[in-house]
Amino acid sequence: MQFAKWTEVAQASVTREILKITQQPGVISFAGGVPAPELFPVEELTRAFAEALTDAQSSLQYTVTEGLPALRESVAGLMTERGVNCSADDIALIHGSQQGLDLVARLFLEPNDLVLVEETTYHGAVLAFNPHGVRFLAVRMDDQGMDVEHLRELLQQERPKLIYCTPTFQNPTSVSLSRPRRQVLAQLAAEFEVPVIEDDPYFGLQYDGEPQPVVKSFDQEDQVIYVGSFSKILAPGLRLGWVVARPDLVSKLNIAQMGSTLHVGTLLQHAVQAYLQTGGLPGHIKTLCDAYRPRRDAMLSALESVMSEVGRWSRPDGGFFVWVRLLEGFSSSRLLEAALAEKVAFVPGDAFYAAGGARDNCLRLSFSTPNVKEIEEGFTRLRHGLTQIKGTRIR
Amino acid sequence: MQFAKWTEVAQASVTREILKITQQPGVISFAGGVPAPELFPVEELTRAFAEALTDAQSSLQYTVTEGLPALRESVAGLMTERGVNCSADDIALIHGSQQGLDLVARLFLEPNDLVLVEETTYHGAVLAFNPHGVRFLAVRMDDQGMDVEHLRELLQQERPKLIYCTPTFQNPTSVSLSRPRRQVLAQLAAEFEVPVIEDDPYFGLQYDGEPQPVVKSFDQEDQVIYVGSFSKILAPGLRLGWVVARPDLVSKLNIAQMGSTLHVGTLLQHAVQAYLQTGGLPGHIKTLCDAYRPRRDAMLSALESVMSEVGRWSRPDGGFFVWVRLLEGFSSSRLLEAALAEKVAFVPGDAFYAAGGARDNCLRLSFSTPNVKEIEEGFTRLRHGLTQIKGTRIR
Repeated sequence: MQFAKWTEVAQASVTREILKITQQPGVISFAGGVPAPELFPVEELTRAFAEALTDAQSSLQYTVTEGLPALRESVAGLMTERGVNCSADDIALIHGSQQGLDLVARLFLEPNDLVLVEETTYHGAVLAFNPHGVRFLAVRMDDQGMDVEHLRELLQQERPKLIYCTPTFQNPTSVSLSRPRRQVLAQLAAEFEVPVIEDDPYFGLQYDGEPQPVVKSFDQEDQVIYVGSFSKILAPGLRLGWVVARPDLVSKLNIAQMGSTLHVGTLLQHAVQAYLQTGGLPGHIKTLCDAYRPRRDAMLSALESVMSEVGRWSRPDGGFFVWVRLLEGFSSSRLLEAALAEKVAFVPGDAFYAAGGARDNCLRLSFSTPNVKEIEEGFTRLRHGLTQIKGTRIR
Repeated sequence: MQFAKWTEVAQASVTREILKITQQPGVISFAGGVPAPELFPVEELTRAFAEALTDAQSSLQYTVTEGLPALRESVAGLMTERGVNCSADDIALIHGSQQGLDLVARLFLEPNDLVLVEETTYHGAVLAFNPHGVRFLAVRMDDQGMDVEHLRELLQQERPKLIYCTPTFQNPTSVSLSRPRRQVLAQLAAEFEVPVIEDDPYFGLQYDGEPQPVVKSFDQEDQVIYVGSFSKILAPGLRLGWVVARPDLVSKLNIAQMGSTLHVGTLLQHAVQAYLQTGGLPGHIKTLCDAYRPRRDAMLSALESVMSEVGRWSRPDGGFFVWVRLLEGFSSSRLLEAALAEKVAFVPGDAFYAAGGARDNCLRLSFSTPNVKEIEEGFTRLRHGLTQIKGTRIR
């Protein structure tokens, strides 16, 4: 048995490994980045699955790879509300946004290709791109997201195959790309004819201010491939997402899908379409925002009270995370050790650098699953952990 | 935008394209090869999904990539009944057997690698292997399945990375590999250290005689990767299957799965586990066999009465298909044209040759979806079609 080369460097996702630790009793987890399970619209989904099963001869059968036309239309409708002028022909259905990254990677990437990613990026994307034996190069980021002038330089110097970007409430930093930069990103993609994957799982989970238009809405030359997901706004255990791209690319994605999972589960498609038809999604998203907003606020207050001497962080408008940068002299791995001893978990920032440059000084803290009381209790524990390591220098 | 090379030769599956035609009203389809939808265990699955949703905080949430331990144990139990000594650690869960082929391909295949396939083979496997830029070489087949002496010669001459094989009621021929050859296949895989994918979606759908032990049961050296599926014995719209392999390979499959769909839908896993716990599967499989057996018999009678002057076919013990080889001078593409004019569909044999060697003289006829009356009516139409083309020579 001789394995393909990429498997030698393959490793499990750190965040998913930490997920296992956090399932131990008594642990307060700021690690997961998963949606709050008590907020799942259980009754509505139960009705939706029951309804889908009333037409079981269709909903339990194989279906065409492109998927249920009605669901593709509903998704196109969601995208139109997000400012993207599209129809069912522009939509490919996928088993979670992860599969979108995988299928797009398959269409473009070959050994030694270069992929541009943000300085910190979603590890799952790296997992989807790695099997193709590609190289990563990081575009610098600041508090407005990807530095598009650095991107321009890289596009002039290198010949990347793909730009991967999470412009809204990025996992891990929660930074959002500013509106002017969104426009520039779309223009650069067109100018250099390099496709951009816009990965957008947190769209809608906005707690203050107005949503930025998605990058795809500035995409005059059809170079942006938008990947959306029901995982955060409905439920991740369903595994349903979508891609918006020009129809010839959607056709190619469907051919790749035939080789991957053949199609997205028919029952799942029927059930989510039944749910969307009730018109309940916007109200549900509002419920989610009203539940996550106080958690974010509680975390920001607790950070202020516990960590102002050891780190700096930004105030996210949405998403699931606060990204903390520790001050000179503090180590995130040492802090994680102390935190785990106190039964608090988070993900150290190192896990999110695909192209090097990681320093042992950042933390990703998620406020999505613990409630306000747990957040407060978690920070009380963290305060205690901090007293153990105060002044510990990075080795 | 520059696509990867493999996409230039990529084409949609012929059978899935024909599926679209068969959805037109009035068409009698022997083309599909999909399970009979009226046999889906709808009430049982409706209960199972409702039950899974009573624990929605788990069943709608992300889960570990390896999947629900209880479901993996149930699947290991199914495999133990099939003569494979295994436990939950040997099981990887997948979104349909198609994803198993995809993930295994990803672990082994690199550009220009050689894959050995049976002379006729499942087109979906070709779709899963193609993105890796591999070459295919065909192992000869006869009415006992793959010619293992030819396989030995090829293993001596070439250095294949993988052997792909559908030993039981093969799609498209319904031929099963004989018991002695199963043993030899497992021995050859061990001797040459080349992994075998045993793709087994029709297991259990056996209408006469005793089931052959699966190739995996002869696998002393852990070279066989078994891919199973709930699509034919439960419902394909669920998209659930499994892989049985040694634990280190299961770990690697799970890393590949993290990059593909992250994990199999949690709700789906909970629901199928709820169904399996009722103990209803063996009885349901018996119901399926009792329904498919008369359809197969009707098709064999109709063939005898309509096609004995134009072709030869074997008598399948199970599965969904009869494979017809037309006599010298008859063309399957010409017959398909005439059949479609009479509103009967089938898949011409050419679609199933991955490594060349196709001649315009075979048909795959499926008896799984039409009932006995429709099969008889379909052959009445085919008889009429045949009178149109009698004596038409292959160009």
